[in-house]
Amino acid sequence: MLAHDEVRAIQWVEDRLRLLDQRKLPESTEYLDLESCEAVAKAIAEMVVRGAPAIGITAAYGVALAAKARYTESPSNWKPALDADLKILANARPTAVNLHWALERMRSLIAIVTSEPYEMLLKEAQRIQAEDVAGNYRMGELGAALLDGRPALTHCNTGSLATGGYGTALGVIRSAFKAGRLSRVFADETRPWLQGSRLTAWELVRDRIPVTLICDAAASSLLRKGEVGWVIVGADRIAANGDVANKIGTYGLAVNARFHGVKFMVVAPSSTIDLNTTSGADIVIEERDVSEILSAPELVNDGAKAWNPVFDITPAELVDVLVTERGVVHGPDRAKLGTLLDADA
Amino acid sequence: MLAHDEVRAIQWVEDRLRLLDQRKLPESTEYLDLESCEAVAKAIAEMVVRGAPAIGITAAYGVALAAKARYTESPSNWKPALDADLKILANARPTAVNLHWALERMRSLIAIVTSEPYEMLLKEAQRIQAEDVAGNYRMGELGAALLDGRPALTHCNTGSLATGGYGTALGVIRSAFKAGRLSRVFADETRPWLQGSRLTAWELVRDRIPVTLICDAAASSLLRKGEVGWVIVGADRIAANGDVANKIGTYGLAVNARFHGVKFMVVAPSSTIDLNTTSGADIVIEERDVSEILSAPELVNDGAKAWNPVFDITPAELVDVLVTERGVVHGPDRAKLGTLLDADA
Repeated sequence: MLAHDEVRAIQWVEDRLRLLDQRKLPESTEYLDLESCEAVAKAIAEMVVRGAPAIGITAAYGVALAAKARYTESPSNWKPALDADLKILANARPTAVNLHWALERMRSLIAIVTSEPYEMLLKEAQRIQAEDVAGNYRMGELGAALLDGRPALTHCNTGSLATGGYGTALGVIRSAFKAGRLSRVFADETRPWLQGSRLTAWELVRDRIPVTLICDAAASSLLRKGEVGWVIVGADRIAANGDVANKIGTYGLAVNARFHGVKFMVVAPSSTIDLNTTSGADIVIEERDVSEILSAPELVNDGAKAWNPVFDITPAELVDVLVTERGVVHGPDRAKLGTLLDADA
Repeated sequence: MLAHDEVRAIQWVEDRLRLLDQRKLPESTEYLDLESCEAVAKAIAEMVVRGAPAIGITAAYGVALAAKARYTESPSNWKPALDADLKILANARPTAVNLHWALERMRSLIAIVTSEPYEMLLKEAQRIQAEDVAGNYRMGELGAALLDGRPALTHCNTGSLATGGYGTALGVIRSAFKAGRLSRVFADETRPWLQGSRLTAWELVRDRIPVTLICDAAASSLLRKGEVGWVIVGADRIAANGDVANKIGTYGLAVNARFHGVKFMVVAPSSTIDLNTTSGADIVIEERDVSEILSAPELVNDGAKAWNPVFDITPAELVDVLVTERGVVHGPDRAKLGTLLDADA
């Protein structure tokens, strides 16, 4: 029996937010129970949880925890203090727009709440997670229908661990494998944090989907062999013109996919599309600590500098297909994204 | 004072071959003293020494050690036994042609020796090393003349550690920095073995040449920024048509360099050109143990497979310039390489 998608990295258990500590995988499966907004923001910043949709969901639960504390402190004037908490959550990581999208959704509810806000906000956070999972299953179907049985190459981790459950790019891969439309997954190891080695391989092995890890720098040789039909990735933010911010290395894959005539698919919930961001040039690219590079593995490179951007921008013209829960967009551009978001909003 | 090129990874000391153990860098500087052909072949296979020119030089010293032992065993019939030793050395690693080139050069000397061969073969090995260093200085001058002061991006390690001394691509970088024709070096960390982090950064820091390490997957973003003038790499084998076998990741860099209008330079001694290999398709690409990927860093990915090619092929049409000690070839192809090797052979 195939057990697709058995992992839930974000769980609400007895008035606490339980996060699977993704920094410890695959060596050990440990959970952290969080009870405060500060703890949630720290968990996001330190990558206990990562992946654009997962960060948004986590932040939403963080708002519920914050509201509970602020209301207890001051039932008559809790909203200004809660506003400060939302800012802390918003600043936990800069690139993924889902974080801001989720906070905005919580904020619009906060604006209309007049009584004790905790239960209502908690239910909203749970709804955000449930909708994310449902959206992932829908994207899985839509994306899988485009595949032809050949292997796919993916980058970073976009699975159950990166979302409410099931996954975006990895959701398409799960659905396609189940439907016999995918034979094998090649996964970039994805330096510096090795999300491919540590998380994607871990998820796919548990699901018994055949996975082959490669070094990021081997992707070009793989594409040249002609076996891979699609490169399938997620997104942390999609600008109004279709430019895609995603894990560093995505852009180089897109360049190589186009060069080799391999199709390039981006899978992301429509909440990832940010019409307020004109193009990729306006997206802040997070740069993390250079020790992730200078000390790897266990090296000391005194005197050397490092540049450690965590994301990159793939221009829309290199994206063949964008799969969202609202539908599939071929050759995404400003007009098509506008129509997609207007459709049934 | 700048101390360019203070490292000698291959030294002949008191009838022994002393190799800097590059697996231990940069954490510790340890040397291994080798006295037998088997030990030399093992050191090449296990990457105590690596880099195409360095492998060739090391193998040449291995022949001298082997000849000494075989002649002592049987002064009247040492040549057949020595022939077996040469085969062991030739099989230590498959991709770099310099290994075979150096052994061929030793073999032609063995063919004409009638007396005790040790001194003559040792001198030939030392000559191969001295010629390699001289060639590197010449390539350094020729390549540096093409640069314009902007930073360069390099991949893997092609420096003193990879050669008799000074380096091929890193020799060009050393000469260019000395001449004020290069402001900074970006170095790919070069997974899985991290030759960039462990070796190139180590060499450049010692030489006080500003170096910035990046993850391999960040190279495309770097090239898009427009700061980098050249991508400069070495080669393990160059086919007759100009296709270049080099460290995995070179090909993807070449694709990205062309896409971004950044020039792509290959620096290699003419002994790297193999007119017996028609094109890149005929070059054996070494695949090393998958544990280099599956267990990095300290991971266990039971159930996942891995593909670990160590080299890739860059088609000649993506190479803008080939720099050899015999001269510079713009847009290398079969005719130009033939002329280059005929020139003063």
